[in-house]
Amino acid sequence: MTENSGPRAVLIASGGMDSTVTAYDLAARGIGVTLLSFDYGQRHRVELEYLEKTAARMGVPHERVDLTGVGRLLAGSALTDASVEVPDGRYSDVSMRATVVANRNMIMLSVAAGLAVARGAEIVAFGAHGGDHVIYPDCRPGFFERLNGALLTGNEGFLVDEFRLEAPFLNGTKVDIVRRGHQLGVPFELTWSCYRGGAVHCGTCGTCSERQEAFALAGIVDPTRYAAPAGAMVAR
Amino acid sequence: MTENSGPRAVLIASGGMDSTVTAYDLAARGIGVTLLSFDYGQRHRVELEYLEKTAARMGVPHERVDLTGVGRLLAGSALTDASVEVPDGRYSDVSMRATVVANRNMIMLSVAAGLAVARGAEIVAFGAHGGDHVIYPDCRPGFFERLNGALLTGNEGFLVDEFRLEAPFLNGTKVDIVRRGHQLGVPFELTWSCYRGGAVHCGTCGTCSERQEAFALAGIVDPTRYAAPAGAMVAR
Repeated sequence: MTENSGPRAVLIASGGMDSTVTAYDLAARGIGVTLLSFDYGQRHRVELEYLEKTAARMGVPHERVDLTGVGRLLAGSALTDASVEVPDGRYSDVSMRATVVANRNMIMLSVAAGLAVARGAEIVAFGAHGGDHVIYPDCRPGFFERLNGALLTGNEGFLVDEFRLEAPFLNGTKVDIVRRGHQLGVPFELTWSCYRGGAVHCGTCGTCSERQEAFALAGIVDPTRYAAPAGAMVAR
Repeated sequence: MTENSGPRAVLIASGGMDSTVTAYDLAARGIGVTLLSFDYGQRHRVELEYLEKTAARMGVPHERVDLTGVGRLLAGSALTDASVEVPDGRYSDVSMRATVVANRNMIMLSVAAGLAVARGAEIVAFGAHGGDHVIYPDCRPGFFERLNGALLTGNEGFLVDEFRLEAPFLNGTKVDIVRRGHQLGVPFELTWSCYRGGAVHCGTCGTCSERQEAFALAGIVDPTRYAAPAGAMVAR
């Protein structure tokens, strides 16, 4: 079976580890992947350059959509508003709330679904995982179930058979993502996590901490260069 | 009660009759309205100038968001793609399918919800009515129920009390909208319906036909100037 004859997926992708491993996971299952990314004015926009590297390496199409107008409208998050500090430390309910962009995933998934419907693709895919659930309500299974229902109802008569949302790691962890990526030979050095968006990963923000921890727990060597010394997180 | 102390709504507004009457209806109920419009490359972009007139007349804020990148991505609809003809005639299942932009309302409502969440507004409002149900699956009550559920779940912990989607005419008709607008003194001449987006309403496309019919059935004089002679629709 060639890639073109199998099912097709539109994957919202950030250039981070989660969506990149999801892309490789879909491709490994014979699914034709289109990467869809969004420029919403995030300060870690460097992630989009990393995504471009993944698209080239995988040889899959990458569509980038300008949502900077939406980003400006919803400013107030540490991710888009330079006046809000990116918090240090582990993911936790309090510090990470500043990194929530209101209704971000629904906005992105809605656009991805529009593209999937317009092109007759079966799958709208997303790299959310269980570790996101605590902080981000729009990464939880209950949200996906309801959104899937809204998509099926709202596009009735315009959908291909078996149209669905898929988030293969929704009930897994970031450690599972590292393990699956390692198994699939994902070049992790071509992924970007840091919310600060500097020249190299800062090593101390929430996503850097989470990234380091996932590699450590998976027992897999982390190829990432961090500005802060390795183990800085553990010392806190 | 001043406008500021009451509930607040973010209304997705097009400059058409339905959303304009919805804006006046919300305001009449003491709700502070913010109009939110989208430039998605629609050929009837003139509607946005009409919306600006309504915002000025009502003295309410109007936010316009550039979604032209999304419009380009989802091209293929008669509304955004100049190579697709706008169909003439009444709304009907076959001819009007060309005017469907994939998942459009979910995309717009998602952005509106993001703005409502970011600003602590209680209501995301929409001017859909019963006459839209036949053609547009994303104007049907079942879609709104599911989307409302997804919004409440996906933004859990970030919502003000009584956050909700509201579409006051969802179970009504366009005739009800004309009657309510007339009752509220809505200046219908400041609204735009025509999908062709010429200098005046064409009088023959689906929305022009629907507009003329609604005024006729409501028994209210239609102040709109049409390019085609009045009654052209009836002759078909």
